[in-house]
Amino acid sequence: MSEPTADAGPDNALAVLGMLAYSELAAFSRLAADATLAPSLDQRLELSRMAGMALERLEQVSDRVGELGGELQPVMQPFAGVLVEFDRRTEPSTWWERLLKAYVGYGVADDFCRMVAAPLDPTTRDLVVQVLGDDGHAGLVVTALSEAGAQDATLASRLALWGRRLVGESLGAVQGVLAAHPRMRDLLMQTMDDDVVPGEAQQRLFAVLTAEHSRRMERLGLTP
Amino acid sequence: MSEPTADAGPDNALAVLGMLAYSELAAFSRLAADATLAPSLDQRLELSRMAGMALERLEQVSDRVGELGGELQPVMQPFAGVLVEFDRRTEPSTWWERLLKAYVGYGVADDFCRMVAAPLDPTTRDLVVQVLGDDGHAGLVVTALSEAGAQDATLASRLALWGRRLVGESLGAVQGVLAAHPRMRDLLMQTMDDDVVPGEAQQRLFAVLTAEHSRRMERLGLTP
Repeated sequence: MSEPTADAGPDNALAVLGMLAYSELAAFSRLAADATLAPSLDQRLELSRMAGMALERLEQVSDRVGELGGELQPVMQPFAGVLVEFDRRTEPSTWWERLLKAYVGYGVADDFCRMVAAPLDPTTRDLVVQVLGDDGHAGLVVTALSEAGAQDATLASRLALWGRRLVGESLGAVQGVLAAHPRMRDLLMQTMDDDVVPGEAQQRLFAVLTAEHSRRMERLGLTP
Repeated sequence: MSEPTADAGPDNALAVLGMLAYSELAAFSRLAADATLAPSLDQRLELSRMAGMALERLEQVSDRVGELGGELQPVMQPFAGVLVEFDRRTEPSTWWERLLKAYVGYGVADDFCRMVAAPLDPTTRDLVVQVLGDDGHAGLVVTALSEAGAQDATLASRLALWGRRLVGESLGAVQGVLAAHPRMRDLLMQTMDDDVVPGEAQQRLFAVLTAEHSRRMERLGLTP
């Protein structure tokens, strides 16, 4: 608590860390569940290890929460419901849809987290950037998806459609977080240029999040 | 490969390590699945962390497999089906049954693994003992189960029954492994006293495994 913090203060930092911690816990559960459905033992090991890495990132976030005088469970609790609805609405029906959701489905949430972390104290901000930048073995997922898409045009167009569904539902989830957490709205306003009005902030946020999503889909060769 | 090995040789060591690795992967998947069903965020974090520890143990086993010149996936593969049938036959119907299965359901498999590891080279044997001894946060599970059982006699007697079911199915799984893997039968014979005949070995093994199971149930205050 003795560390100097930026204008946003430790309460804002704890809120962002709580959201990030919950997102990593959700990533862990999802990857572990995907692992049990993997078609081969190799892929099961791969996805289990990716799940393990999400858990390690959660521990890094937990350490920072402790440094700021918070406790993990209470700071995570307010975000516990956010992804439940998203997951219910985006249940993958094939192994490829599942992989795509693992890679792009949560990219929007990560980008949002990065943006609201920008006005936080430098230590917390750097941690958020580092945790979100550590995409584990995502490279392997990208390779598998691009290769599959390149070989099967029908699959590619189905996945492109699935990608649009995922981004739509993700933006809905972000909207839900902003509506329920005034602190997140404040942080978003601080991140944007000073001349932005509240109504515009969300519009601009969605434009940024959509552009980043399109960049990820292009990386996979899955453009509409 | 230059390391001196005991009479059992590296192939036997790789077989035991493969079985242990698969058992840790199964523990990881099971604990991660249990975590998503946990009634509170605290318990969900707890079980997720226990899953993460199973994965860390898997990595330790994987390192040793590499030292012995093996590869993880091929040595695990022969054991990939073992626990599927066990899990199908012992689907928990309540949260308490799930916790009991996490604690005692796999204890039999662990004890069996310890026994067939006894004749291996000292480095591998010590690793197996250490990996199986690292029961993570099992203490918390023991506390939760003993307290719940002490407060609710009906629950306690149901769980005692469930424990008997678990040990019966576990012994069936061990029998399946012995039937399918001659290497495991050899190791078991080496572990037993020299005067034992093959038919007796399994009988004695089952007596030891049942006694260890009873000890765990007593620790929980769940005696029939």
